[in-house]
Amino acid sequence: MQSGATTNSDNPSASAGPLAPALCVSRWFNAQADISLESLRGRVVVLHAFQMLCPACVSHGLPQAMKVHRTFAQSDVAVLGLHTVFEHHDAMAPHALQAFLEEYRISFPVAVDRPSPNGPLAEPVPTTMRAYELRGTPSLVLIDRQGMVRLKHFGNIEDLALGALLGQLIAEPAEGPQQSSPSTAAGDSTGAPTPIQHRAT
Amino acid sequence: MQSGATTNSDNPSASAGPLAPALCVSRWFNAQADISLESLRGRVVVLHAFQMLCPACVSHGLPQAMKVHRTFAQSDVAVLGLHTVFEHHDAMAPHALQAFLEEYRISFPVAVDRPSPNGPLAEPVPTTMRAYELRGTPSLVLIDRQGMVRLKHFGNIEDLALGALLGQLIAEPAEGPQQSSPSTAAGDSTGAPTPIQHRAT
Amino acid sequence: MQSGATTNSDNPSASAGPLAPALCVSRWFNAQADISLESLRGRVVVLHAFQMLCPACVSHGLPQAMKVHRTFAQSDVAVLGLHTVFEHHDAMAPHALQAFLEEYRISFPVAVDRPSPNGPLAEPVPTTMRAYELRGTPSLVLIDRQGMVRLKHFGNIEDLALGALLGQLIAEPAEGPQQSSPSTAAGDSTGAPTPIQHRAT
Amino acid sequence: MQSGATTNSDNPSASAGPLAPALCVSRWFNAQADISLESLRGRVVVLHAFQMLCPACVSHGLPQAMKVHRTFAQSDVAVLGLHTVFEHHDAMAPHALQAFLEEYRISFPVAVDRPSPNGPLAEPVPTTMRAYELRGTPSLVLIDRQGMVRLKHFGNIEDLALGALLGQLIAEPAEGPQQSSPSTAAGDSTGAPTPIQHRAT
Repeated sequence: MQSGATTNSDNPSASAGPLAPALCVSRWFNAQADISLESLRGRVVVLHAFQMLCPACVSHGLPQAMKVHRTFAQSDVAVLGLHTVFEHHDAMAPHALQAFLEEYRISFPVAVDRPSPNGPLAEPVPTTMRAYELRGTPSLVLIDRQGMVRLKHFGNIEDLALGALLGQLIAEPAEGPQQSSPSTAAGDSTGAPTPIQHRAT
Repeated sequence: MQSGATTNSDNPSASAGPLAPALCVSRWFNAQADISLESLRGRVVVLHAFQMLCPACVSHGLPQAMKVHRTFAQSDVAVLGLHTVFEHHDAMAPHALQAFLEEYRISFPVAVDRPSPNGPLAEPVPTTMRAYELRGTPSLVLIDRQGMVRLKHFGNIEDLALGALLGQLIAEPAEGPQQSSPSTAAGDSTGAPTPIQHRAT
Repeated sequence: MQSGATTNSDNPSASAGPLAPALCVSRWFNAQADISLESLRGRVVVLHAFQMLCPACVSHGLPQAMKVHRTFAQSDVAVLGLHTVFEHHDAMAPHALQAFLEEYRISFPVAVDRPSPNGPLAEPVPTTMRAYELRGTPSLVLIDRQGMVRLKHFGNIEDLALGALLGQLIAEPAEGPQQSSPSTAAGDSTGAPTPIQHRAT
Repeated sequence: MQSGATTNSDNPSASAGPLAPALCVSRWFNAQADISLESLRGRVVVLHAFQMLCPACVSHGLPQAMKVHRTFAQSDVAVLGLHTVFEHHDAMAPHALQAFLEEYRISFPVAVDRPSPNGPLAEPVPTTMRAYELRGTPSLVLIDRQGMVRLKHFGNIEDLALGALLGQLIAEPAEGPQQSSPSTAAGDSTGAPTPIQHRAT
């Protein structure tokens, strides 16, 4: 988990792409029913991948996710935690996570990433974490109103930079412009959204 | 200046309006020539009003302005300081400000707000501060790409909330939609930009 | 564990008394052999009682204990952690603590407080915690060079105040004055060490 | 003043010596009459040398001095500020300092270090600062109950380490042991107090 405390050097703006992979979840906390990304379409989704024993997650990532949850209207931004245990599996089982969430008073929905079908010994990285190709914890995934992954960031990110990314995504229409105005298709065959640009901090 | 350490309770989103008043400046620091708001049209302007002996400005407002200056591309966001001395005028004269800016290594342009023509004894609040109706220091004014005041905020504002406001303003086009659609003619009240909405923190 | 995040209002200086009770330990981490308080006689002992899922322990108490460990000579001050699990026993078993200590890079010796012989269901508070009458986590116990408890503090304590207490205890001789002056015989109430006085912060 | 932001590498414990030089003061703030070190004999004196436009003084040194002032009994510890202006003299004149002290709500006595008799152009370092051979701001001088300089530290010092030094000095008797017990003079002709030892952080 030591890698989780460092920031990545890759460009966090280069992650635009297709629809966000579905979440593979073995259990939800702080949710009355399962939550699918489809059900959140139209809202910006902040997916915070963490491990309960990852120091940078506890000191930085989770407090930031809680702050995002407090700051933005739920109709604009949905915050989801994703417990992506890829080490110390015995120490971070769901019953331990439950105690952790209670002690840290985390109130947004948290999903337990489904372990690999081959078991954590054969494949320690859980299913959703693999599908999103996350490098460690904490990682932040931003999904736009249309369901596209717009940012994957490993390590800490400053509040100011994260706020700017969210402000930009919130400002985008829930319905893509390329669908409402066919003429813009000319010269833009992919219709892909513009990747978010922000200067490295 | 004690008021400068408190946050305001008014809604920071309610400040949309006409063109930002011109800056009345007696002296510029960190600028090779005078800077007008007109010359920054097309960029988002972050105007940070401060006093060099205001504790909340020194501990929060100015470091935040420096962080904004570092984080965003200068082609998108212009950061300006405005030294709005309304008390202790003798202790915060321009030569003292110069030493302050040097010691704190503030590198963005800083304007000295022009004192009232009647002198600070008769009218302690300087000219630009009065034109913007700022309540104290620190105050933050956000001006959009078209030159409209979109936020006036007195007191501290969190990085996450400020980032979101900036991300939204950066995402707006430099040319107003009312110009590309003639039906929203001059005088059409609907052509006004939408005030920025963000939840109070 | 919510009580662990609050500070106590009792006077932390009122805890002088007899010899510190022996540690009842089911397992040591970061120690090559069992450690007894007797073996530390002549040094000041900083005993930090914590739970690995207690937020105030993780954000304040443990970093402070690590700082004490770094700051003082080991010949003067011995830092010991004491994992006093009194809730969420399943989530904070020794194998989970081991992962926690590794992730947080805690390098001083840590003892697992021995569970009550009746089992945690009948008596959730472990043995040493009961012997010291600790109210929750984090708690700090200071033991002087002669083995006397000189401070029990529940909740956060500021670095400056803790440093002053340690400076005073370090300055005391390892051999008590009552031993060099036979007139302060056994049973002489005046031979008791002076409780540490410090102003509440 | 850039040097003021760095910590020194010299040993802060090596400063024991003769009686602390007298303070040469042109003006006192927060004091009803002049304060001499002699009048504080019997108490530990914390002398904090600062400049009002020195960033490390404002962010670290002065808040720490205020915390010392709050934490310890005034009968044990006297906190004095010393405004040692050695640059930007025009910007940090006494009237500016007065505004600064008011805005930052500094309540302990503050002395203005007397400028060199030759004037700041010929000799920018003021008189007391030269007598104490201070290297810059912030600097901390600790004087024991008998009036001896026991520590001179340039740059930041951690609360924990400062607390330990103060705890040790507070524990010392106001009357030196060498004076009340002549027999200890044998083999210790100087009678000098032991320099404070603490591990560099």
